[in-house]
Amino acid sequence: MAVSLSTRPHRLLPLFLGLFQGALLLFFALFVTYDEPPEQAEDTNLVAKQVYSTFPFFQDIQVMLVVGLGLLLAFLPRYGFSALTHNFLLLNFSMQWALVLQGLLHHLHHGQIHLDLHKLLISEFAAVTVLISVGAILGRASPCQLLVMATCEIPAYLASEWLIVTCLGVLDVGGTITIHVFSCYFGLGVSKALFRTTQQPLHPKETPTPRSDLMSLVGTLILWVFWPSFVAVLCQPGDAQHRAILNTLLAMSASAITTVVASSLLERDGKLSPGHLQNGSLAGGVAIGVVADMAMPPVAALALGSLSALVCVLGFRFLTPLLGRRLTLRDQCGIHNLHGLPGILGAAASVVAVLVAPKDTSASHPSQLSPAGGNASQAVEGQWRDRGAGGQALCQAAGLAVALGASLLAGLLTGTALRLPGLARPPELLCFDDSLYFKIQDQAESP
Amino acid sequence: MAVSLSTRPHRLLPLFLGLFQGALLLFFALFVTYDEPPEQAEDTNLVAKQVYSTFPFFQDIQVMLVVGLGLLLAFLPRYGFSALTHNFLLLNFSMQWALVLQGLLHHLHHGQIHLDLHKLLISEFAAVTVLISVGAILGRASPCQLLVMATCEIPAYLASEWLIVTCLGVLDVGGTITIHVFSCYFGLGVSKALFRTTQQPLHPKETPTPRSDLMSLVGTLILWVFWPSFVAVLCQPGDAQHRAILNTLLAMSASAITTVVASSLLERDGKLSPGHLQNGSLAGGVAIGVVADMAMPPVAALALGSLSALVCVLGFRFLTPLLGRRLTLRDQCGIHNLHGLPGILGAAASVVAVLVAPKDTSASHPSQLSPAGGNASQAVEGQWRDRGAGGQALCQAAGLAVALGASLLAGLLTGTALRLPGLARPPELLCFDDSLYFKIQDQAESP
Amino acid sequence: MAVSLSTRPHRLLPLFLGLFQGALLLFFALFVTYDEPPEQAEDTNLVAKQVYSTFPFFQDIQVMLVVGLGLLLAFLPRYGFSALTHNFLLLNFSMQWALVLQGLLHHLHHGQIHLDLHKLLISEFAAVTVLISVGAILGRASPCQLLVMATCEIPAYLASEWLIVTCLGVLDVGGTITIHVFSCYFGLGVSKALFRTTQQPLHPKETPTPRSDLMSLVGTLILWVFWPSFVAVLCQPGDAQHRAILNTLLAMSASAITTVVASSLLERDGKLSPGHLQNGSLAGGVAIGVVADMAMPPVAALALGSLSALVCVLGFRFLTPLLGRRLTLRDQCGIHNLHGLPGILGAAASVVAVLVAPKDTSASHPSQLSPAGGNASQAVEGQWRDRGAGGQALCQAAGLAVALGASLLAGLLTGTALRLPGLARPPELLCFDDSLYFKIQDQAESP
Repeated sequence: MAVSLSTRPHRLLPLFLGLFQGALLLFFALFVTYDEPPEQAEDTNLVAKQVYSTFPFFQDIQVMLVVGLGLLLAFLPRYGFSALTHNFLLLNFSMQWALVLQGLLHHLHHGQIHLDLHKLLISEFAAVTVLISVGAILGRASPCQLLVMATCEIPAYLASEWLIVTCLGVLDVGGTITIHVFSCYFGLGVSKALFRTTQQPLHPKETPTPRSDLMSLVGTLILWVFWPSFVAVLCQPGDAQHRAILNTLLAMSASAITTVVASSLLERDGKLSPGHLQNGSLAGGVAIGVVADMAMPPVAALALGSLSALVCVLGFRFLTPLLGRRLTLRDQCGIHNLHGLPGILGAAASVVAVLVAPKDTSASHPSQLSPAGGNASQAVEGQWRDRGAGGQALCQAAGLAVALGASLLAGLLTGTALRLPGLARPPELLCFDDSLYFKIQDQAESP
Repeated sequence: MAVSLSTRPHRLLPLFLGLFQGALLLFFALFVTYDEPPEQAEDTNLVAKQVYSTFPFFQDIQVMLVVGLGLLLAFLPRYGFSALTHNFLLLNFSMQWALVLQGLLHHLHHGQIHLDLHKLLISEFAAVTVLISVGAILGRASPCQLLVMATCEIPAYLASEWLIVTCLGVLDVGGTITIHVFSCYFGLGVSKALFRTTQQPLHPKETPTPRSDLMSLVGTLILWVFWPSFVAVLCQPGDAQHRAILNTLLAMSASAITTVVASSLLERDGKLSPGHLQNGSLAGGVAIGVVADMAMPPVAALALGSLSALVCVLGFRFLTPLLGRRLTLRDQCGIHNLHGLPGILGAAASVVAVLVAPKDTSASHPSQLSPAGGNASQAVEGQWRDRGAGGQALCQAAGLAVALGASLLAGLLTGTALRLPGLARPPELLCFDDSLYFKIQDQAESP
Repeated sequence: MAVSLSTRPHRLLPLFLGLFQGALLLFFALFVTYDEPPEQAEDTNLVAKQVYSTFPFFQDIQVMLVVGLGLLLAFLPRYGFSALTHNFLLLNFSMQWALVLQGLLHHLHHGQIHLDLHKLLISEFAAVTVLISVGAILGRASPCQLLVMATCEIPAYLASEWLIVTCLGVLDVGGTITIHVFSCYFGLGVSKALFRTTQQPLHPKETPTPRSDLMSLVGTLILWVFWPSFVAVLCQPGDAQHRAILNTLLAMSASAITTVVASSLLERDGKLSPGHLQNGSLAGGVAIGVVADMAMPPVAALALGSLSALVCVLGFRFLTPLLGRRLTLRDQCGIHNLHGLPGILGAAASVVAVLVAPKDTSASHPSQLSPAGGNASQAVEGQWRDRGAGGQALCQAAGLAVALGASLLAGLLTGTALRLPGLARPPELLCFDDSLYFKIQDQAESP
């Protein structure tokens, strides 16, 4: 009976997605073009250079999001196919939806929207917020609910990002505040409003097996390898980008080692927890984003990486159980430990960094290779120079506050909307199970 | 008895491969050199630029073919090791064989053959046809049969590609017609001629398990991520390449979403079929190749991606069973749905595109970074300008016809040759089983 | 009892790692900075070009070491999580440790150490030696022992590399002698001194399952794909780098095919051994490193690739059992066959290559894009020109001798040190088992 109830509204999924694709086609037909082919040979070479300087980074980020993050989420032993597929579907949906909204918001007053690789990249960054937020409710929400969540989160993110970067002039090249902090608290808000429950016993399908833990670790390692591309892709080419890559590498290397130290100390018998490794190793990448291209000494990157891994592991060990008991808050993947706490730590570090950094940090001589986004980032740095270190530090703190507030509010509202009866929330018994959504052989029967 | 018969002729495999390696060494010793080191510092910089502009694309394509395609084929639960290994072996064999043939055909009249990255890339493209065709007979053919098939397919492909691109001047930067359509119908021809059987019941080892479906999905995702590199690597650097990347990204994104819609609507209970997802998500990449660098609006890429995913899923649902019943045609991986139908769709789209496109599409100002292949592609575009839109449209259609005809004919002949008794076709009982070819623990006994 | 003894000293791991991280932070705080941001716009463009010419190679190498090598080592069915994690931990630890030592050795007399991507890359190369050596004792050593081994191996490697490259002027762009030969015999030395045992029966957890063999093969394929980046990253940009990429591609392609031939001929029933495939396919990459950028004909690369795969497979079939019986030498992953024998073969090939090669081989016109390491490599080539072909050939042979001697000596000493009682060597019964180090569900109980 529960099953028939839960499977019926699946019809909503193709309906919703089909309508969206139709609307997208219409929107593109009406408003979107490519740039005119350049008239001059020099311009052709310039386009070629931009492609060669952006595309390898772009591909790295695609691997991270599609393969790395997908596998990381596949730690639930019977939910791996769903985790990979829903992650993939949401990435595409959110990216297209962000393309539409950004087109409408930023570009419509110039008439046609000129699509380029940079705009796709910006939309991909918006989609990342959805992929992170899902972690809070992974396995307990239907694809319909996830799509509705994405529909709400993308405009909320764009508004929050506009406030933080354009209005406040916050420096955040790797998206620590705008992406990680925002998506974490949005996801937690959704989880709180959606589940509202008292604490529940562990679901029998919730425990990772050695095999699913291994897949998830492979995902972590893929994310770990390509993270520098994610942080550095929007930097000023040249010195600032070089520094962002190095800082990210140092922070993530320190994270990896500190995670082992912390996990081994916290567990009674000195054994490492797979969950700590899968998340803590990446915490440095989350925290470093906001300061990666600033003129700070390398030791700061190492320290920030270590500290954020420590915070992440401590969060898993103490804070998550506490939040579960006190606030009956569910956080299936522990996104608060990987994105929330290290994100806040990174924001705090950025306050310190702008206070102590020399004024003329990032590339004062913008390179010819600078992508389309270069101008915005230069403008932000111009503001910084005008308002002084103290003012900029205040802005960084204000940016964090905006991200926290906006995301929690939007998340709670979205979570409430997800309780609408038609959205096919899976019954408790069928949570964490691929066979609810896919024509897949039952895992118990498989050899 | 059947086993001893089937395992004996394995000796043919090392003999065949060993002789081939010996002949290859001889051929290279006699005819192949590298370019002379450049005399001038500027030329050294030019070579360096060419390496930096081609090598990342080349590596992406290697990942696609070796890891992505290998994993995609690993959906047969007891045949994963064979799928990966045979794919890997065939890639290397076919690439070397294509190097030899291309060397003989195109370059011998200039004396020595000068090897460079571009020539290796072209040979790799030839090898792709073999890897695709294998999908029709996966699990039912011995490695010897596969090698003989590769031996026949490469010259057939080179002849067909020469007819289509050089003689007819067909525009096909991503290989939709020359690679995908050709290899699909070649593979189906081989399958038809090789098996000739009446319909057979489902083999017990043919059904994917959740684990093998997951591996296969990871392969799909890797292919999905790197597909833009495959389509764009041979484009004119600059605007045309930029457009090819964007069009491919849009088409594949639309494919991903349309696949979910179509699969969910076609299955009675709204559950998605893993096979649809694994293939449909890539259909847009197949179709877009032939028009990727043309001056068409972005909406066309989205529409083509959607349509090809729809066609692919419909093919799996209705056409494959029909072909199985009516023509007793076996298509193990459904290559007709992933490569055949979307390829034909793409070819049709290219007819429309050249009819409606403005004349001076692709980079009229060839960049200095243009790889060795640039001249050929410029020559093709020159033909286009001379013969007018209608003429070019006719050529595109003629190219499709040539690809279809040549591949079916060559495939049927090759499939007949594969029935030769010495080629160790595995007995029905031992199909889809790694343990026939590898010293591997029996899967049933493994913990 | 054995368990309690073995699990207690785990406390050493966090203590050791924690102290190391603290010391690293102190060292970085005192001595390490980034370069000053460049004053001129041209310099900014130069930095940008260096990033674009090095970073994609660097990322490829990271994927190889973190994902590819990790998965390759995951062939032990119950030890996959440990293999991936220990590999990851050792990479980070060894890279940081190499950064510190290289900073102290080479740069301290210039005051501050200026960190850049090139220095990180050099440290990563040092770390590779540790990851290879581990293969000899995989599954039988505790993480503490591995860290102590890394602590000893990095300075030994740096000393040996200084002797070989700086003093002797050995040409070895892909690290065949300095990395592969050194790390192999270091690992074997450690194994000999650590285990000293009589021959032992096969451990029940030592046999790969089809699933673990598949994961390991995926690792091999990832390594195979990205190997050209590893060999070519430190080459002179331009012609030499182009040639290094092509030679590596040819050698590895020949290796793949020869491995199939050799494995199929050596096994009685013609079935391929997974272990041969996983290792032999990579042997060409090991051997080609030392000659990859030299002016030799393409056929030499093919021949070297074939020969090294043959040697590797023969080593697995005959030499490893022999060494096990005669010298009671344990080599868990067969590193002697993959790194030792092909490395020696490559060194021998380099002797021949410098004898027969024309004098002015590698880029005599260094490109503007040349990375920081360019000067060293130019200096080495200068030496070569001065000392003549015979002298250089002698140097190559001497370099091999130094690598062999230094590594064996250092390995034996290190292995003896690893017998110290506090280092938590796992009891025989608990070898090859993740559950000794990770809070992971027992594999036998998992569904």
